[in-house]
Amino acid sequence: MTKAIDNIIIIGAGNVATHLARALLQSNKKIIQVISKSVTSAQTLGEICNCQFTSKIHEVSDNADLYLIAVPDDSIKEIAEIFPFKNKLLAHTSGSVSMDVLKEITVNYGVFYPLQTFTKNISLEYENIPFCIEASTNENTELLIQLASGISKNIYKIDFKQRRQLHLAAVFACNFSNHMYSIAEDILSHEEIPFDILKPLIQETARKIESLSPKMAQTGPAVRNDKLTITKHLDKLKSFEDYQKIYTFMTQSIQKEQKRK
Amino acid sequence: MTKAIDNIIIIGAGNVATHLARALLQSNKKIIQVISKSVTSAQTLGEICNCQFTSKIHEVSDNADLYLIAVPDDSIKEIAEIFPFKNKLLAHTSGSVSMDVLKEITVNYGVFYPLQTFTKNISLEYENIPFCIEASTNENTELLIQLASGISKNIYKIDFKQRRQLHLAAVFACNFSNHMYSIAEDILSHEEIPFDILKPLIQETARKIESLSPKMAQTGPAVRNDKLTITKHLDKLKSFEDYQKIYTFMTQSIQKEQKRK
Repeated sequence: MTKAIDNIIIIGAGNVATHLARALLQSNKKIIQVISKSVTSAQTLGEICNCQFTSKIHEVSDNADLYLIAVPDDSIKEIAEIFPFKNKLLAHTSGSVSMDVLKEITVNYGVFYPLQTFTKNISLEYENIPFCIEASTNENTELLIQLASGISKNIYKIDFKQRRQLHLAAVFACNFSNHMYSIAEDILSHEEIPFDILKPLIQETARKIESLSPKMAQTGPAVRNDKLTITKHLDKLKSFEDYQKIYTFMTQSIQKEQKRK
Repeated sequence: MTKAIDNIIIIGAGNVATHLARALLQSNKKIIQVISKSVTSAQTLGEICNCQFTSKIHEVSDNADLYLIAVPDDSIKEIAEIFPFKNKLLAHTSGSVSMDVLKEITVNYGVFYPLQTFTKNISLEYENIPFCIEASTNENTELLIQLASGISKNIYKIDFKQRRQLHLAAVFACNFSNHMYSIAEDILSHEEIPFDILKPLIQETARKIESLSPKMAQTGPAVRNDKLTITKHLDKLKSFEDYQKIYTFMTQSIQKEQKRK
């Protein structure tokens, strides 16, 4: 086994792959090859990494310390099955796939899961991204932890059961809160109010929970049980059936939670 | 009429009143009296403002340029009705109450609504808070705009119809997204995972919409229509009936929205 990971091959060239490549380059690692089904994507990322690229997995080079699979969840198994090396360290980057999907392929395998929302062309400060690490042996765990430590100060050893739970929680904290912003934007558009007006409120709502638990930070008509305002809001939402349902369930859920406090 | 507002009396001593008082003091305005039903709260805020305080509305001084009502929505009318001056500029700070509630009381009235989530002991940068202004005359509107401009760079003239819509949108963008954080924290607690691990993701989700519309920023299983992950998530939520319902509705709502794109 190598003592540290220096040379990396990235399989995948989407958002996660691109951001991870940039983060690894910043931490002075070498990306020696990029492999992606789409040759255009492979080329784009290959140019960023200043390295070889190919769309053919069987052209994978044998001299990397780590092979990082950053592809959609459904494709991980399929790629793993045609991976040709039995001893190389192979890791995937998914929040909801077990590392066991790699165990028939090689003896050295693991998970290198960055808990973040990645969007192309939106730059990120990598040093705060939590990395969730799991691997087949202690040595592999240490290698992946060491690699992540070059990128970020937030490293966690997380097993599959926890990682799945984390991924579920992240859907609420990220995807669903983002959808709340989206509903708000839609509601404002009906009175031709620019969405910009809500941005300071959104930033402050996110900032507040840095120092206060969200339960304690809750404000608004639901937590005050301000029935008059709630009734008026539901009335205004009568032409948006879906939003009305969401308003009702969220209000009930907030009120139940406050009773449990 | 005065040419500018210099001396202010604040009626109310809760979160909004306290933050507004601090913001006004920072912009070199003088708070000359604080009035609150609770004499303890009146005293606390009076000490912050280094001014008189009282719990009796009939002791209100007659030499202020503005009387600012920052109390719960339900109490605004009740306070207005015992306000003794017929010509003084009187404004409330609510997102969901019409300014007409003040029109029988004085000829000079308006709304001074700061669109932000206020929590005691959480300090705020006031200069980004959007202030929504509406008043009975152009002159009063200008006076309130001028006052807000001393605090913030985001000033909007917003009428009641827009303000109500804005308040409704704010419930989604702030209260409901905060509740999503709270559900995430609860889900994590079942695997004893610290909530801290989600904070960088929450910050990034909020930061991303500064430069990208939330619709375009959406990520996750719903927008990818990743049915396998959605099914697994719903299965994991089977012991949290409310969260399962919210998960289902949010997923459907995200998918409908993406089709409308």
